[in-house]
This record gives sequence, C-alpha cells and structure tokens, in this order.
Amino acid sequence: MMYGYLGSMKAKAGHRDEVVSILLSASDGLPSAGCSLYVVGVSETDDQTIWVSEVWDSKEHHDASLQLPETRAAISKAMPMLTGEFESHEYAVAGGLGVPPMPA
Amino acid sequence: MMYGYLGSMKAKAGHRDEVVSILLSASDGLPSAGCSLYVVGVSETDDQTIWVSEVWDSKEHHDASLQLPETRAAISKAMPMLTGEFESHEYAVAGGLGVPPMPA
Repeated sequence: MMYGYLGSMKAKAGHRDEVVSILLSASDGLPSAGCSLYVVGVSETDDQTIWVSEVWDSKEHHDASLQLPETRAAISKAMPMLTGEFESHEYAVAGGLGVPPMPA
Repeated sequence: MMYGYLGSMKAKAGHRDEVVSILLSASDGLPSAGCSLYVVGVSETDDQTIWVSEVWDSKEHHDASLQLPETRAAISKAMPMLTGEFESHEYAVAGGLGVPPMPA
C-alpha cells in the first residue's frame, strides 16, 4: 500500500513565502525517488502555517528521500526560517482520485 | 488559488473498511465537480482513523459538492458508522507535484 504523509510547519514571521519557494524548488527529483504526489499550501487564517500532503510508493521511499543531497540542502536552507513547530500524520493510502496505481 | 482540504474522521470499531469503501465509491463524480485530488487512507497506528486529502478548484466547488445527491447519500450512509470526532484543515494550494494547473 502506498504511504501518505500529511504535515504542517510554521515559518517565522515574514519568511513563509521563501520557505514555500524552497519546498517547491525541491520537487523536481521527487518522481524518481518514488513520490507521486507532493502538494504544498499555506493557511489563509494565519501567515505562518505551511501544509504539505504527500504520497509515496512506500514509507521507505519517503525516508530515503530525506537523505538525498537536494532534500538535505532544502531542509538546511529552510530550517532557520521555521519556528520548530511541526505536526505530522502518516497513513496507508486506500485509493481515490489522482492517486496513481502502484508501480509494478 | 486552488483549495486544499485535509481531514480526519474516526470510524466506530469494526466499521472502518466499510466507511473507506463508501468514501471511495463517491469519487466518480468528483472531477466534474471541480475536484482534482481526493486521497483516502487509514492510520496504521490505530484501527479507527481515516484520513482524506483533497484539492479543489476553489472552496466554493468543495462546499457545493456537499450538496450533490451522491455526496449526501454517501454522508448519510457513513455517518452512523463514525464516532463524531472530526479534524479538518483548509489551505491555499501553492503548487507541487501532481497538482494540476488551474482550469482556464
């Protein structure tokens, strides 16, 4: 079953747009790393919260991606602009619309 | 900007698979209702939690979809199997992988 990840983080005041740009810039290598969905968005009720919704071939693919040079570089760049408040939820993907079939 | 919705609900003991089936069965009409992404999944750390991650053309499209006959039927069918504990977050989609371009 594919692996779903939902997460939020908070950017320090005035830095959210920059963090969103960094997150989006790191998305080129995702398909080859086993990621089929990576949605980045922002709360409209505050100016700090960023949401990420991801679907990966497996949790192992997700975890391994955190070691990729471009991911590590993006994390290093974004981290000083974050408050340190994170929230995350993991789930097993059951299906839906826009979810690709599992790779063979 | 497209509208993102992240939600969770809890099924009463023994009813989660059935609720997931209902949620997935209601997904056929979504594209024509302005929904481009609808991922349904289940927590692997408990046997009650269901996660849903959605992307719509706008919040108005999402809200209007709740009035569709098939959506109302699915909600009526699932509701008695839920505990009543819901969590939801709304966000504005900034971009990412697997996010379709906004319709013209």
